[in-house]
Amino acid sequence: MTTTAIRGGLVITATEEILADVLVEDGRIAALAAPDSSCAQGWTPDRTLDATGKYVVPGGVDAHTHFDLPFGGTASSDTFETGTRAAAWGGTTTVVDFAVQSRGGALREGLDTWHAKAEGTCAVDYAFHMILSDVRESSLKEMDLLVGEGVTSFKLFMAYPGVFYSDDGQILRAMQRAAGNGGLIMMHAENGIAIDVLVEQALAAGRTDPRYHGEVRKALLEAEATHRAIALAQVAGSPLYVVHVSAEEAVAELVQARDKGLPVFGETCPQYLFLSTDNLAEPGFEGAKYVCSTPLRPREHQAALWRGLRTNDLQVVSTDHCPFCFSGQKELGRGDFSKIPNGLPGVEHRMDLLHQAVVDGHITRRRWIEIACTAPARMFGLAPRKGTLAPGADADIVIYDPHARQTLSATTHHMNVDYSAYEGKEITGRVETVLSRGETVIDRGRYTVRAGHGRYVPRATCQYLA
Amino acid sequence: MTTTAIRGGLVITATEEILADVLVEDGRIAALAAPDSSCAQGWTPDRTLDATGKYVVPGGVDAHTHFDLPFGGTASSDTFETGTRAAAWGGTTTVVDFAVQSRGGALREGLDTWHAKAEGTCAVDYAFHMILSDVRESSLKEMDLLVGEGVTSFKLFMAYPGVFYSDDGQILRAMQRAAGNGGLIMMHAENGIAIDVLVEQALAAGRTDPRYHGEVRKALLEAEATHRAIALAQVAGSPLYVVHVSAEEAVAELVQARDKGLPVFGETCPQYLFLSTDNLAEPGFEGAKYVCSTPLRPREHQAALWRGLRTNDLQVVSTDHCPFCFSGQKELGRGDFSKIPNGLPGVEHRMDLLHQAVVDGHITRRRWIEIACTAPARMFGLAPRKGTLAPGADADIVIYDPHARQTLSATTHHMNVDYSAYEGKEITGRVETVLSRGETVIDRGRYTVRAGHGRYVPRATCQYLA
Amino acid sequence: MTTTAIRGGLVITATEEILADVLVEDGRIAALAAPDSSCAQGWTPDRTLDATGKYVVPGGVDAHTHFDLPFGGTASSDTFETGTRAAAWGGTTTVVDFAVQSRGGALREGLDTWHAKAEGTCAVDYAFHMILSDVRESSLKEMDLLVGEGVTSFKLFMAYPGVFYSDDGQILRAMQRAAGNGGLIMMHAENGIAIDVLVEQALAAGRTDPRYHGEVRKALLEAEATHRAIALAQVAGSPLYVVHVSAEEAVAELVQARDKGLPVFGETCPQYLFLSTDNLAEPGFEGAKYVCSTPLRPREHQAALWRGLRTNDLQVVSTDHCPFCFSGQKELGRGDFSKIPNGLPGVEHRMDLLHQAVVDGHITRRRWIEIACTAPARMFGLAPRKGTLAPGADADIVIYDPHARQTLSATTHHMNVDYSAYEGKEITGRVETVLSRGETVIDRGRYTVRAGHGRYVPRATCQYLA
Amino acid sequence: MTTTAIRGGLVITATEEILADVLVEDGRIAALAAPDSSCAQGWTPDRTLDATGKYVVPGGVDAHTHFDLPFGGTASSDTFETGTRAAAWGGTTTVVDFAVQSRGGALREGLDTWHAKAEGTCAVDYAFHMILSDVRESSLKEMDLLVGEGVTSFKLFMAYPGVFYSDDGQILRAMQRAAGNGGLIMMHAENGIAIDVLVEQALAAGRTDPRYHGEVRKALLEAEATHRAIALAQVAGSPLYVVHVSAEEAVAELVQARDKGLPVFGETCPQYLFLSTDNLAEPGFEGAKYVCSTPLRPREHQAALWRGLRTNDLQVVSTDHCPFCFSGQKELGRGDFSKIPNGLPGVEHRMDLLHQAVVDGHITRRRWIEIACTAPARMFGLAPRKGTLAPGADADIVIYDPHARQTLSATTHHMNVDYSAYEGKEITGRVETVLSRGETVIDRGRYTVRAGHGRYVPRATCQYLA
Repeated sequence: MTTTAIRGGLVITATEEILADVLVEDGRIAALAAPDSSCAQGWTPDRTLDATGKYVVPGGVDAHTHFDLPFGGTASSDTFETGTRAAAWGGTTTVVDFAVQSRGGALREGLDTWHAKAEGTCAVDYAFHMILSDVRESSLKEMDLLVGEGVTSFKLFMAYPGVFYSDDGQILRAMQRAAGNGGLIMMHAENGIAIDVLVEQALAAGRTDPRYHGEVRKALLEAEATHRAIALAQVAGSPLYVVHVSAEEAVAELVQARDKGLPVFGETCPQYLFLSTDNLAEPGFEGAKYVCSTPLRPREHQAALWRGLRTNDLQVVSTDHCPFCFSGQKELGRGDFSKIPNGLPGVEHRMDLLHQAVVDGHITRRRWIEIACTAPARMFGLAPRKGTLAPGADADIVIYDPHARQTLSATTHHMNVDYSAYEGKEITGRVETVLSRGETVIDRGRYTVRAGHGRYVPRATCQYLA
Repeated sequence: MTTTAIRGGLVITATEEILADVLVEDGRIAALAAPDSSCAQGWTPDRTLDATGKYVVPGGVDAHTHFDLPFGGTASSDTFETGTRAAAWGGTTTVVDFAVQSRGGALREGLDTWHAKAEGTCAVDYAFHMILSDVRESSLKEMDLLVGEGVTSFKLFMAYPGVFYSDDGQILRAMQRAAGNGGLIMMHAENGIAIDVLVEQALAAGRTDPRYHGEVRKALLEAEATHRAIALAQVAGSPLYVVHVSAEEAVAELVQARDKGLPVFGETCPQYLFLSTDNLAEPGFEGAKYVCSTPLRPREHQAALWRGLRTNDLQVVSTDHCPFCFSGQKELGRGDFSKIPNGLPGVEHRMDLLHQAVVDGHITRRRWIEIACTAPARMFGLAPRKGTLAPGADADIVIYDPHARQTLSATTHHMNVDYSAYEGKEITGRVETVLSRGETVIDRGRYTVRAGHGRYVPRATCQYLA
Repeated sequence: MTTTAIRGGLVITATEEILADVLVEDGRIAALAAPDSSCAQGWTPDRTLDATGKYVVPGGVDAHTHFDLPFGGTASSDTFETGTRAAAWGGTTTVVDFAVQSRGGALREGLDTWHAKAEGTCAVDYAFHMILSDVRESSLKEMDLLVGEGVTSFKLFMAYPGVFYSDDGQILRAMQRAAGNGGLIMMHAENGIAIDVLVEQALAAGRTDPRYHGEVRKALLEAEATHRAIALAQVAGSPLYVVHVSAEEAVAELVQARDKGLPVFGETCPQYLFLSTDNLAEPGFEGAKYVCSTPLRPREHQAALWRGLRTNDLQVVSTDHCPFCFSGQKELGRGDFSKIPNGLPGVEHRMDLLHQAVVDGHITRRRWIEIACTAPARMFGLAPRKGTLAPGADADIVIYDPHARQTLSATTHHMNVDYSAYEGKEITGRVETVLSRGETVIDRGRYTVRAGHGRYVPRATCQYLA
Repeated sequence: MTTTAIRGGLVITATEEILADVLVEDGRIAALAAPDSSCAQGWTPDRTLDATGKYVVPGGVDAHTHFDLPFGGTASSDTFETGTRAAAWGGTTTVVDFAVQSRGGALREGLDTWHAKAEGTCAVDYAFHMILSDVRESSLKEMDLLVGEGVTSFKLFMAYPGVFYSDDGQILRAMQRAAGNGGLIMMHAENGIAIDVLVEQALAAGRTDPRYHGEVRKALLEAEATHRAIALAQVAGSPLYVVHVSAEEAVAELVQARDKGLPVFGETCPQYLFLSTDNLAEPGFEGAKYVCSTPLRPREHQAALWRGLRTNDLQVVSTDHCPFCFSGQKELGRGDFSKIPNGLPGVEHRMDLLHQAVVDGHITRRRWIEIACTAPARMFGLAPRKGTLAPGADADIVIYDPHARQTLSATTHHMNVDYSAYEGKEITGRVETVLSRGETVIDRGRYTVRAGHGRYVPRATCQYLA
């Protein structure tokens, strides 16, 4: 197999920023060496990539995508093929998507379905979480089996009664099981039972516009559910990972739990860091583009999210990528915000938006890599192969130009969706080259890999609990 | 210059645990490579160290030592020569000692004195903090100069009125200056004014034994001073590093500050993690061996310290190494605990005690390296040369045998002091080999370097504030 | 009608301790006067009670009793006749009992049933709360009607799924309604859904003894439900009254809410202040005597309850009197703690136990009267008629001997139950004389009133929300 | 002596609102009676005051005045004669002023001086706190003596270095003494040492206007001192009363302390509730009128003060009345804000401003009376004579017209100062009649008592600590 040297770049990992050359052999990182060392100078690779003036960073790990997800009578518009290709364009080389247990169905069945969706179509590597829609005795037993085959995290919903919702007893049982088998419970923490009352009342009062989606899904009800999930995890003796945290009151619950030393983790998403209820309130039906759950919050909440990312009270930034076209999909909710499919496109822009956060002074470069690559990899058992640049790791490598400028737009993005949530946003920084297991996926503006290059990656259990 | 390969070990850094071979050229780390890579296999070093079954870790950075410190009418018993040699035996390859401004004197004068003490005598590299004993207009100006020459941190005392004590106005002024010049204020946070009242009352009441040292220096008065230092730093807009945190109430103050996102840092020491007021209360005058300030606390406080180390509310473990012989020095305080010289020996045992903490389950291996090597280096501007294993870094490397067993004792230790604070304590793990800038300092139980190998290292400013 | 003067006593109210004479006319308090005033000396009452050396205090208000309550296939053993008589013996002159809506039934129906149970049988005055077992549209409408006729508080259960349980949507709707009509929502705050999982698991594991009742109903699950109820009340904009708080973690939730200025109130009961899991663990099946929900907690929780009573984070001490005979009733749960009827007898001893708390130094005399008389009266809209001694108020008056000593025992108590939860407990202090609306109910050890003296008292809305 | 009946009013105390007639005999309250009782109807007083449609409330207790106080090279402009007269006009019938120990002087000496200032000149009753300016062994001993003669509270300053300032050791010693003798330590909590640095820097930078007074005396430095005072009181085992709390961060410290059950109390003043830094920033030198310490804060702080008053985290509203004429006194600080005498006039308006707060919905009527009359009386050992309306209490009674309207102005006020801090402010409510020990002081707009009516009242120790 070919060997590649990447020379002259600034290698950034979660803890280091070093001028180093990187040698790739057999799809793995063979060595990092000081550029002026005789070691580096002695390399004779098949090809050399010049990274002078660029960053050399690990490929991104997006731990929260929903490709081809049936939801609200339609399905998210990116397939594994289009979705992972867009991911690659944005410097993300591993995605963890959610297989879904259907109500009354087996976990196995759901997992098989998702394997079938993904197999042979992906541009980059992928893994699966499992959504538990129906916690019953047999589901609990299956959890053990799935952990054994590399599906080590299980998502539960305190929202969406009648769809994905689990009650507190089901949650407790699943957490107890996870405490035993090493699985990590991921929680959509919103009090869906209370929210549904407010939805019904809002619609009855004629408050049907997209912005009411944000008003009924109250920050207090996200915080409440977060608190409750933490309490149940304490009772069960299990760790907890709260997905898509958006409210500062919810961050406060995580802070409180972590101050006690509890194994509680939190994820937020670019949309909560860069967008707000101002977008939901855009005129006409435009707000529908920004309907997702947890919902966008007033701009004032963003400071708490950035602070949480800095203080490590939030550990991961994922996208919760779940795109629906405005035309024909989001429009299902005209006249009734509760019928707007929930979700935003984003898998392509995470690395760039977080680099912009570096430029804006919210986070350091190392923290950028940590929250976008290293922490999600370690959280979901993908280290040491994914999420870092170290000898032995998969050669998932991004050469990133920190000075390039780009403008985000639906006209240029590669996701299969007819709008951009960040239309017109200017970004400093751009992915130049992407390697996946040593193979070039993106080469200075060209997509160069076949669909199906991406492989399924079985995962170990959470690596923050040792 | 000779090249060295270290092969077969588990390389542990703050974020990675990888099987990797390490190549040293010219006193620096030239490369890390996967052992089975053609890159690693192609190395032809002058010598090869076999680390199979061992850990390969960065040399320790002890950011708090007091060699040859005049205190209480005597002086700490380790010189830079004996102290750095003991450090080396224990796997510590960089120490940051405290130069002292004398009252009425200039910073320069103190710094020159300390340079003279250290120069040409050290086994490992060293740097200096500056103790401000007399904050006045000229001292503030000198701070800028010292930052320029690599003395980038300044210690103030809220304790020891009449000796090192600064009042809140002096503290505020020094913090303001540091906010401007990038210096880091280190604080001995105890309300010394209040403590002196309690000391006087205790002595007047005939409570003269060593254990009263612990009783009068109340946890609440450490917490109070910590809170006050944080408030003053907020007013000044400066970062703050609190040294030798021992009380859980003080940890709580740090937690609260850090939850707000303030640039506040905390250090604790092995003695607070492993010893307690039980030691201070040992019969006879034995307790004097354990007299230091902040004092040892009741055993119950240790849980908060360990938790703080896990949650990153405490970032650094230093030793506050400040040894006084029991015979002739500690004995100065017979019949009056306030005359016992304050300080414990410890520079030799930090890496081992913290490895024991890994064995005991308090921290992970990566966190061991982070709090003992990486964080102190970065806190005090020594990265990327010190504190990690990465291409380009100084080849300060320890081969550590995680399975060896040893018993700490004054009969075997290398510090120049007639007792051990950990006499008889059994440890799993031992330093096998120590390299300093590529030169072997400790080679499987032999000390192999000349005094004077160690060099002064000017420091950048704190690297957690970018 | 006769007039009565009570002379020479120390009149204690929630805010005053004064030597004053009290004049009763027409069943109401006509005047309080300084004993040496010409005013007092000019009184010519029909009879004079000598209270020299005694306390003259308001009759107690017990805001939480369950007389003749069907529960777990049996019914609580005190009728309104026996229960209110026992209350009178203990110095309580007003009780607020819980009428119950049956599932599928109307509030009206339940209220009528409870009126029928009480009417013509009571020794002292009584009022009703309403238990909502089935929140639906019609129940919400009936709430308005009930507020109009003096039933101004509504109890909901987060525990007891399938029996009294309301889900969060029902709770939110009821709270919204209360926010509109001035009603006060009373909450049994335990996560019953999660608890039922733990109950099932305990029984399946053969842990069937009474003490497991305490173990499965975890403090964390009381705290969680308390937090959730507060959040839902915030969303609804309604006040909240949490009944029978027993866990220190639940107190902490109340503290946090009240620090924010939220209209959140808390009640505890003598059993949580004086008994503990030690009682639940008594040998044989004795522990069944102490089975109630929320359960008794480990002794360490008591300090938080006492502190909460002192800091006004808890406002009311009620009894949650709900007696079941050991023989034939508690015994239903032999071999299955979940079948033990939940509840303790206590209506007779509240005033005495809280006086003992004064003697023990937990609370002041004024606070005794406030938490036992004034606050419950005001909380539930009974002021200015009940709960204090002031001109115009009902002459519900207790002459209390603070020096008398008594021993609590089933052999001497007046409640219709075959055991005492406080068997053998010695108390300093005893009720001497009790007036209800001026009529003597207890006269130095004799019960002197006919059943049926007690009248229904319609209530105003909560008087802490002005 | 004459007897007086006050008929038809609504009697409001800290806990009751009742329609009651009040009978005054011999300067004390003889009786409260229901208006329709034969008791009330049988009264044959010498005179009857008709309070129909009015409130009948206790005379106010202002626990913080500075009459004739030497400060900053001048003296506060109200004497005991003019000051107590103005107090009477405003419905305040008891003041507690501060006698001052001079540096190097004895407490006795200071107290004698203040007795001489007051004796024979006062319109209403008065008592004294003692300011400790010089805590030394002899001062501590004198504290015991003063407690014995009714001066039971001692004020210390963490501000004003070189004037009133005590260091933490002096504070600790005084607190220890108070813990022993029952005295209450009152604290001016601002870090004066740090503030003086900021003052010097502001002046050096040409920031000399009055508004800089507010900027240099930072909220964080009030909170810091509050926290420190609480910690020292914990160490000493003494209670603590923090005067003139103005910053929300300081309130937060009190909340935290009180949540722990510590005997910590807080006072605020009308100026912090109704004025703000907007006033300090008034154009020209107008801001000087509002210079006091602690300083006025930005308007946003007021919410925390009101909430603290509602939640009982603040217990007392006093005036800190310390007037200096704008002309000739405040003007001393033109061009140097630090030379503006610190203090505002206010003794006349406290009851009215707090009634306005009732009208505005900040507090209830009962709470108005509690914070303005009952709590200060009880806090400083004046109950049961002062602060309430109860048989046996001094007949210090105000008939208050809740519907009258008035406009505050220097042209109409009775304080000896040439400006009003509330010029033009409209108030709903006005004092109609004031009795002091049964004697009429204010009678519907006429001042009717001789100077010298007011008597010295020795005080018991704090009545919240039983």
